[in-house]
Amino acid sequence: MEEFERAKREAIKKFLKACDENKVDREILPLLNKINERKEYYTSSSCAGRILLLEIPHIGDKKNAKFLGKWHRKIEVRELEPFISKAKKGVIWLLAQSPIIHIATNSYESADRMVKIANSCGFKNSSIKSIGKKIVVEVCSTERLDVPIGKDGFIFCNQNHLKLLVEISNEVIEKSKRKIERFTNFMMKDNIG
Amino acid sequence: MEEFERAKREAIKKFLKACDENKVDREILPLLNKINERKEYYTSSSCAGRILLLEIPHIGDKKNAKFLGKWHRKIEVRELEPFISKAKKGVIWLLAQSPIIHIATNSYESADRMVKIANSCGFKNSSIKSIGKKIVVEVCSTERLDVPIGKDGFIFCNQNHLKLLVEISNEVIEKSKRKIERFTNFMMKDNIG
Repeated sequence: MEEFERAKREAIKKFLKACDENKVDREILPLLNKINERKEYYTSSSCAGRILLLEIPHIGDKKNAKFLGKWHRKIEVRELEPFISKAKKGVIWLLAQSPIIHIATNSYESADRMVKIANSCGFKNSSIKSIGKKIVVEVCSTERLDVPIGKDGFIFCNQNHLKLLVEISNEVIEKSKRKIERFTNFMMKDNIG
Repeated sequence: MEEFERAKREAIKKFLKACDENKVDREILPLLNKINERKEYYTSSSCAGRILLLEIPHIGDKKNAKFLGKWHRKIEVRELEPFISKAKKGVIWLLAQSPIIHIATNSYESADRMVKIANSCGFKNSSIKSIGKKIVVEVCSTERLDVPIGKDGFIFCNQNHLKLLVEISNEVIEKSKRKIERFTNFMMKDNIG
């Protein structure tokens, strides 16, 4: 218990520093603040959902992945092009990722409650990632897009296909936004104590 | 504790029936048997990893998803074609999914141990899905492909693109196989008691 409070103080210090440096996604900030106000929780890492353009030499080889472009908002097809042209070697992926929030908790019961709340707000893929020394909940959703769109600097998609991919990526971003709002509203109501 | 044993007996009965009806993926059967031999665990649902061709009216609308084709093995591009031609309305998706195994456990400690074992065998996305009445571990991996390939019966990918997508899907299947082998070998060694 004392250990949890010490770790929370450390985490909040880091979090405030990250906020000062504009390293925390703005869309998710009111939610993170609300969670951190609770004595039984604190947030560690988080992302509000994003569209990524990556170059990966081999599937799963995240270590050697190169970020070509990154957006925390809806995009248009023409915005991709200058970033695609940076691709050189390996498979080019277009990813759309829904939000992900890691939350440390002080008990199994608090962890279970947070998973249930997240689920009820649309984050249907939430779970408890570890229950060893530290109890950590991962809040996340099922919507996503993981598309290899080309190889070795060359794109295989025609304009119609890119349009469809961007349309669906934007839908992931839009849904993410709505789910974050729902979760934020729930936490505002102060009814989980 | 008694409740766990009763639920396990029920689950094993269903599992044996599913085996009789060839509804359990063969690649994963020795592993499931090994897990079920342990007094502290039993498996509920599982999939050995697969390639799917789906038609989905809207993103996330799994309820109305229509299975066009399903393979638990590596495939060739030409195998997709007759199934693609069944598509009519909505977005056509090609998915490659790595294995997923749900395991009920009798304690938090057993759940934590299973997550750690699964992680060490390459299932890096494993977690505890619930710790309420029932403690359930989900064993799963990060490799996947989620690709909208066309719309309303029309495919946007050219042959080169389909070839790349099938290549990567096959890689997911191949990696899944190796991870299942590793996990099975670990459980065979009987060293988690």
